Amino acid sequence: MKGYCLPLSPEGKAQVVDPPPWHYGGDIIQVVFKADPKEVKQVLPEPLELGSNPGLAFIWFVEWTSVSDVNPDLAYLNPERSQYKECLLAVSCRYHGEEGFTVPYIWVDNDFTLLRGWFQGFPKKLARIYMTRPHPLNPKMGPIGPGTKLKGICEGHGERIAEASLRITGKASVEELPKFRFFLLRHYPSVEDPSRPAVMELAQSVVENVRVSDVWKGEAELYFYPSFFEEVDKLKPIEILAGHYFSLGMTIKGGRILHRY
Amino acid sequence: MKGYCLPLSPEGKAQVVDPPPWHYGGDIIQVVFKADPKEVKQVLPEPLELGSNPGLAFIWFVEWTSVSDVNPDLAYLNPERSQYKECLLAVSCRYHGEEGFTVPYIWVDNDFTLLRGWFQGFPKKLARIYMTRPHPLNPKMGPIGPGTKLKGICEGHGERIAEASLRITGKASVEELPKFRFFLLRHYPSVEDPSRPAVMELAQSVVENVRVSDVWKGEAELYFYPSFFEEVDKLKPIEILAGHYFSLGMTIKGGRILHRY
Amino acid sequence: MKGYCLPLSPEGKAQVVDPPPWHYGGDIIQVVFKADPKEVKQVLPEPLELGSNPGLAFIWFVEWTSVSDVNPDLAYLNPERSQYKECLLAVSCRYHGEEGFTVPYIWVDNDFTLLRGWFQGFPKKLARIYMTRPHPLNPKMGPIGPGTKLKGICEGHGERIAEASLRITGKASVEELPKFRFFLLRHYPSVEDPSRPAVMELAQSVVENVRVSDVWKGEAELYFYPSFFEEVDKLKPIEILAGHYFSLGMTIKGGRILHRY
Amino acid sequence: MKGYCLPLSPEGKAQVVDPPPWHYGGDIIQVVFKADPKEVKQVLPEPLELGSNPGLAFIWFVEWTSVSDVNPDLAYLNPERSQYKECLLAVSCRYHGEEGFTVPYIWVDNDFTLLRGWFQGFPKKLARIYMTRPHPLNPKMGPIGPGTKLKGICEGHGERIAEASLRITGKASVEELPKFRFFLLRHYPSVEDPSRPAVMELAQSVVENVRVSDVWKGEAELYFYPSFFEEVDKLKPIEILAGHYFSLGMTIKGGRILHRY
Repeated sequence: MKGYCLPLSPEGKAQVVDPPPWHYGGDIIQVVFKADPKEVKQVLPEPLELGSNPGLAFIWFVEWTSVSDVNPDLAYLNPERSQYKECLLAVSCRYHGEEGFTVPYIWVDNDFTLLRGWFQGFPKKLARIYMTRPHPLNPKMGPIGPGTKLKGICEGHGERIAEASLRITGKASVEELPKFRFFLLRHYPSVEDPSRPAVMELAQSVVENVRVSDVWKGEAELYFYPSFFEEVDKLKPIEILAGHYFSLGMTIKGGRILHRY
Repeated sequence: MKGYCLPLSPEGKAQVVDPPPWHYGGDIIQVVFKADPKEVKQVLPEPLELGSNPGLAFIWFVEWTSVSDVNPDLAYLNPERSQYKECLLAVSCRYHGEEGFTVPYIWVDNDFTLLRGWFQGFPKKLARIYMTRPHPLNPKMGPIGPGTKLKGICEGHGERIAEASLRITGKASVEELPKFRFFLLRHYPSVEDPSRPAVMELAQSVVENVRVSDVWKGEAELYFYPSFFEEVDKLKPIEILAGHYFSLGMTIKGGRILHRY
Repeated sequence: MKGYCLPLSPEGKAQVVDPPPWHYGGDIIQVVFKADPKEVKQVLPEPLELGSNPGLAFIWFVEWTSVSDVNPDLAYLNPERSQYKECLLAVSCRYHGEEGFTVPYIWVDNDFTLLRGWFQGFPKKLARIYMTRPHPLNPKMGPIGPGTKLKGICEGHGERIAEASLRITGKASVEELPKFRFFLLRHYPSVEDPSRPAVMELAQSVVENVRVSDVWKGEAELYFYPSFFEEVDKLKPIEILAGHYFSLGMTIKGGRILHRY
Repeated sequence: MKGYCLPLSPEGKAQVVDPPPWHYGGDIIQVVFKADPKEVKQVLPEPLELGSNPGLAFIWFVEWTSVSDVNPDLAYLNPERSQYKECLLAVSCRYHGEEGFTVPYIWVDNDFTLLRGWFQGFPKKLARIYMTRPHPLNPKMGPIGPGTKLKGICEGHGERIAEASLRITGKASVEELPKFRFFLLRHYPSVEDPSRPAVMELAQSVVENVRVSDVWKGEAELYFYPSFFEEVDKLKPIEILAGHYFSLGMTIKGGRILHRY
């Protein structure tokens, strides 16, 4: 049986997602904020420590188009297998002195990206994600620019989980965006003993071909809502630092294991 | 109670959709084809007749952003209320010598557009619609141009209904696109007598502010599939005439009644 | 072209729903409550008046299986066309001295029931509806009885709209349930003039074959949530009167027009 | 950070699913059939061998209600977290002389069950699953019995994947149903080397509290459809052996590792 992941099959076609490298392009609503550092510390697996700017965090609402390297025609063969929406929360941290981010909570809206995320250490759950998508020819919207308003909403299990808003005020430069090096916890349960994972390791994402364009900034708001099935509201903003809208392209080649538990 | 449509409510906020004018912007995969004129004739409500190019037809796969005139911030207040995907089939016809198109079958993926369509005479049903969405920063996709491949898929009640494919070969001009004047059948049942509709009238859409940009052409394919709940496969292509990808903006102000049955 | 409703088609197969009679069977979580009569009055189209128990209201969360008379095999041909979930709010009223209920707000999760509702005067919108479904063989659930807890949740446009809870305390009789005679507002816009509907009439549902079984009662709670796109929260409970869980079968033959506006 | 699985969180509430034991109850449309033993052999990970009845297989369409042992009120707290539909294909095999089944392909419709399946070795993907749900009070359906017709449909990525049909002819006994001992392949990729999994082991499900009731049998049909993203059609029936409809309750306590690769 062939395949990078389940389901393995005689020809390897049935697997839920192709192996890396994976290529991405997307448009991102970003809110950069400060969360309570005491709460951020609670979601950092050791040996990760608080970053040099404790509590620094950002959220992304993204509409991605992704294809695999082995099947670059994926977006054409079946668009459903190449698109998804994502709500990603990243909190700053430090690994042996290196600054970066980890992702305690993240939601997506399809299976291939859910599992591809788990393989990398993104703890994805399913949700419905809605993002303003301005169209330049819509007579009441016009091209993106100062005054354009954007919103991202994440809803899961019948509850609104997160909502980010942005009112664009002007152009920004790539340098104003946080650099997103990711330290991620890969974790996979044992089937024999629920208290002892079969896999538990800290990985660093290996990302290439990063390209950013069309960077805008603006006034932002961000809310997290209480839920019986989420704890993201503990990481709610105590200060909004910036809001951006930009396009991002990149290739994820996989990860490098930094630490095994 | 206030409202343009149900549900009426004390403040008029609960209605499923705001009144016209409605403003649209979207990216369209279009296949122009010839269907069997005998079959096209079967879906023309009299007094519509076959057009001067009998059997001429086109399909659109579109990802729309739409807002209402009374609530232009809709795309920001809740993106879910401003976006939908559509698979629209139009067949050419003539009304008292005027050339145009009618829309026998059309699928969308949300309630506000479903009912807004019914109000105009677009006989919308719900389906899931998937369209290739190339992202220019995706390292394996690059900007749209010759060689870009696009697909649209429409699936309803667990069945694939329609699939359109396009391989872009070059730029095209707006003049190459069919002019889409729509003659539509508004029809609404009586609650007392199922055999006698409460509303049955032929309407012409009143469209303004039409803007087209980024017109590409290419090699196209189109398939309709059999189904217990659809008859679109009778209108299957007997000849593919053209394929296009373009952006469209417009305002629909409502309709003008041409004929009452 | 044939058909009871759009889309009309050569064989009449494409229509979104078959003509009445329609046959229903479902399991219902019901909360009977008192809303503010002043607010109830706001959602009664004249000549409907407040009922003799002003403010009396109930909500249903239902999982329906429905088939049409002309196609009783529908649930077998395609189960997707025969099942839906519903959240229905009914407020008591009086028509020329006759007691009954009208339905100002109602949500369902598929197209055929959405439009079938509109044809009758149920102002349906799409939502996602979740209901506890106890299974008697689940080792931790057991058969329904005193102590069983049930919940219904209605979520639309990324917002929780309504939530009903019930803790069963014992058996109840059919006589304890409100009699549900429905007076409904049929309303359909004109395409030429948004301020003047093409159809506006008061209809009474014609219901037959009503059968009720397995009636339980219990302690209930009900919450409506604020929303930019709903006004149901104005009808929030000022007193919970009863909670029930029961099974219902019926046939809807159509409606009788009582009044034209 | 606490949790049985990702996302780990300070209180352990955010995890996509609670730890075992998990308790299930559901109604099952089952088709027992013979697939081509050569094709079955292709989906058996060694050391699994063909069973004593080579090619014996069955498909289940199930509507499950499941709760966890640590949170038995789950079905009440949020019904959405306790229900899912499943299409499960099992093929017979032998492990060191012990007869059982493995599950090469399986589809579900929510995240918690998708990942809970992966943890056990069920290679789940997302799909939409539709099953006839007869309601005894529906005036045109009546109680289940001889003549009742049932269908299960599984649709993923815009394609119909599988369809099973059953026409009930009479009662059956529990003894007529295949015994479902499951041997499952747990497999989880490495993030550093796509060609070498981090976890690859053969597990046997540990199931308790099995209860079966309301067993019916009938005439069955089963179709698998071709797809670019599935290989299930290679396991298509060469002979239909039986069809059943029954209710099942059980507790899954986890699994026992039989073999590590």
